[in-house]
Amino acid sequence: MILAPRKQGEPTVVVGLMSGTSLDGIDAAIVRIHGSGLTASAELLHYYSRSYEPEFRRRLQELCGTEHSSSAAVCSMNAYLGYRFGEAVLEAIADAGMRIEDVDLVSSHGQTIWHLPVAEPDDPYSTPSTLQIGDISVIAKLTGLPVVGDFRPADMAVGGQGAPFAPYGDLILFRHHERGRLLQNVGGIGNCTALPAGAGPSEVLAFDTGPGNMVIDAVVHALSEGRLSYDEGGKWAAQGKPDQALLDEMMSHAYFRTPPPKSTGRELFGQPYAASFLKAASARGLSDEDIVATATAFTAASIADSYERYVFPRVAIAEVIVTGGGAHNRTLLHMLSERLPGQKVMTSAELGWNDDAKEAVIFALLGNDFVHGVPNNLPAATGALRPTVMGKLALP
Amino acid sequence: MILAPRKQGEPTVVVGLMSGTSLDGIDAAIVRIHGSGLTASAELLHYYSRSYEPEFRRRLQELCGTEHSSSAAVCSMNAYLGYRFGEAVLEAIADAGMRIEDVDLVSSHGQTIWHLPVAEPDDPYSTPSTLQIGDISVIAKLTGLPVVGDFRPADMAVGGQGAPFAPYGDLILFRHHERGRLLQNVGGIGNCTALPAGAGPSEVLAFDTGPGNMVIDAVVHALSEGRLSYDEGGKWAAQGKPDQALLDEMMSHAYFRTPPPKSTGRELFGQPYAASFLKAASARGLSDEDIVATATAFTAASIADSYERYVFPRVAIAEVIVTGGGAHNRTLLHMLSERLPGQKVMTSAELGWNDDAKEAVIFALLGNDFVHGVPNNLPAATGALRPTVMGKLALP
Ligand SMILES: Nc1ncnc2c1ncn2[C@@H]1O[C@H](COP(=O)(O)OP(=O)(O)OP(=O)(O)O)[C@@H](O)[C@H]1O
Ligand SMILES: Nc1ncnc2c1ncn2[C@@H]1O[C@H](COP(=O)(O)OP(=O)(O)OP(=O)(O)O)[C@@H](O)[C@H]1O
Repeated sequence: MILAPRKQGEPTVVVGLMSGTSLDGIDAAIVRIHGSGLTASAELLHYYSRSYEPEFRRRLQELCGTEHSSSAAVCSMNAYLGYRFGEAVLEAIADAGMRIEDVDLVSSHGQTIWHLPVAEPDDPYSTPSTLQIGDISVIAKLTGLPVVGDFRPADMAVGGQGAPFAPYGDLILFRHHERGRLLQNVGGIGNCTALPAGAGPSEVLAFDTGPGNMVIDAVVHALSEGRLSYDEGGKWAAQGKPDQALLDEMMSHAYFRTPPPKSTGRELFGQPYAASFLKAASARGLSDEDIVATATAFTAASIADSYERYVFPRVAIAEVIVTGGGAHNRTLLHMLSERLPGQKVMTSAELGWNDDAKEAVIFALLGNDFVHGVPNNLPAATGALRPTVMGKLALP
Repeated sequence: MILAPRKQGEPTVVVGLMSGTSLDGIDAAIVRIHGSGLTASAELLHYYSRSYEPEFRRRLQELCGTEHSSSAAVCSMNAYLGYRFGEAVLEAIADAGMRIEDVDLVSSHGQTIWHLPVAEPDDPYSTPSTLQIGDISVIAKLTGLPVVGDFRPADMAVGGQGAPFAPYGDLILFRHHERGRLLQNVGGIGNCTALPAGAGPSEVLAFDTGPGNMVIDAVVHALSEGRLSYDEGGKWAAQGKPDQALLDEMMSHAYFRTPPPKSTGRELFGQPYAASFLKAASARGLSDEDIVATATAFTAASIADSYERYVFPRVAIAEVIVTGGGAHNRTLLHMLSERLPGQKVMTSAELGWNDDAKEAVIFALLGNDFVHGVPNNLPAATGALRPTVMGKLALP
């Protein structure tokens, strides 16, 4: 153990901080953790979130590009975000009706402003790397708490991609001794973590299934002429019927025939993809309802198809647990259930987990591991050559 | 104590790493340290240094500006430099005929690419901050040793300027019971530490005197059309004569009239400053020799002037001890002696300290303090509101 626990033998209370790539704000989860590593157990005491103001989001967006970013901007924003994160910690603790003395540790993901999994081939100094800002020393001095953060570079330093980390949390939070489980996150992209019953760390299978809400959102945005940004509850899709021929064509995409490990993003299923889908759909004379239904069926089919090809032949699965914003789309859940006969399809909310808090909880676990000196990367998910202790520690 | 010592009650063996603002390379000092904090004692076991190749120096220079730097470049170079630092540690240990098992800890300053002591007034997100790169997780994973680094942000987070740190080391290494001493480091920037006889931590007076070798180096580089990067031994300057009128003009810079605590860097005396100095000098028709002599006299005058204004009126001084690369510039030493009648001007080498190693030794001390959980900033020097434990820890 690196830091002595506040009280010997007692659980660690950790404030986990997450700030995602969508640059929407800060999620804080106050978590009581017993033990460490793969046998840790976590109890969510309080969840708190804060949005970034639009101007700040714009500045972060600049920092995530090459045109308007600079060493000066990174330097200043790194400290500035440290103060924002530190304030979020203090607010979360107050919001929970707790005191600083009730908390042992803060653990922060930081704001990713660059991620380079593979070096640029034409530059001898280019190096696989990842950059999360929001200085942990600033958080520590502001809150008076020890802070762990900056996890991803350590995984890359042992040959990993520095991502994804969700499977590690899925393993600890959702592994079941008797039932194989599939965790399906439906964010912009869909990604799944297959957990065999009583899985060990090397038995985890995780990969991106394909589109999550990305195509649905783009289609809804276009058909509503910009009024809607997503299909609330899946209501629009529920009024239509998927076009099977178009769906078959979409499912012939090469991504679905690539075996894992694999990951995808906006490159494959972003705006250009959605635009050409809309063109094909209107060429077929589909109604708006049928178009949204087909986009939704595409997400459901690509998920189910991924399982049939790459998960079910290897891992016995009893339950599919849907997380992320897509878990609110009831039509999607219904389509998924229909395509997965024999599986119990449910949401993590039904298991009592606040979905928005989940990522912040994972970082609480990672920080707790650090102070216990316990490896906290998952080579099966990141491709790292070995388990290692990720993170850096700053003292109050 | 944060990390348990390898063997209870034994001294800590630390590899201290320093890479200065002159971007010349990496200094490594292997140091055996007894105790911690102000009563620590340090013994230099081995000194090792590596130069950066010119192309890499050029890239770092770009990173220290706003025009060609970006989040992407910071991200990649942060990891790349981590590998370079890690390799330097391994080489230093091998060069010393030691084994990894003989070493307890690495402590790294990192490469400063930006330092903003005061926020930009017209930007609500601008924050006092400092950015040192060379990822400590990368060093830890490569060497198999725990690594402490990234000290400066912690001092700034408690209201300090994040600099200078040398006074802390000066106090521990050079404090004399009977004689007041002035330690003058001449690196890229010049900085001094006044140590009254038998000084305690609150009696230390330290500040940046102004340019060190920065202006001299830039001028020599330009006049030699890139062939020379510094004035070896001060030979070029010795052949010229400082232009008094130009020197007076340079000495009228507001920085010299600002009372300590104060610190400076490339922002004030970097490339743009050197370029406008060169322009003024050639407008006056000065010869190359006279230009180098004037740049050298500028460093000497700014040091002596600082003493007259801010040190001598407060502290009785008997000896001026010059350290840093500028201690090799005999013309500079000579000019300094002439401007400081009544002082014994000597180099730390004359006191038996390997000068180049000194800064790296200080970082070994700072890292040793971190793992002992002992405050390692010197508020009297940095202006911090309180003593605090600076640094971040990464595990192997
Ligand atoms: N009530 C709802 N009904 C339908 N869809 C919803 C609802 N709420 C959220 N969503 C969908 O979830 C999306 C946001 O999901 P989430 O917050 O998981 O994404 P993210 O965090 O940006 O994704 P990523 O995991 O890719 O970083 C919305 O864009 C929308 O498509
Ligand atoms: N033999 C020499 N003759 C003259 N000048 C020298 C000599 N050797 C080194 N220097 C000067 O010292 C500089 C390097 O000094 P040093 O290593 O102390 O700087 P640094 O560590 O980069 O500085 P800082 O303390 O600002 O971080 C060189 O750039 C050069 O100007």
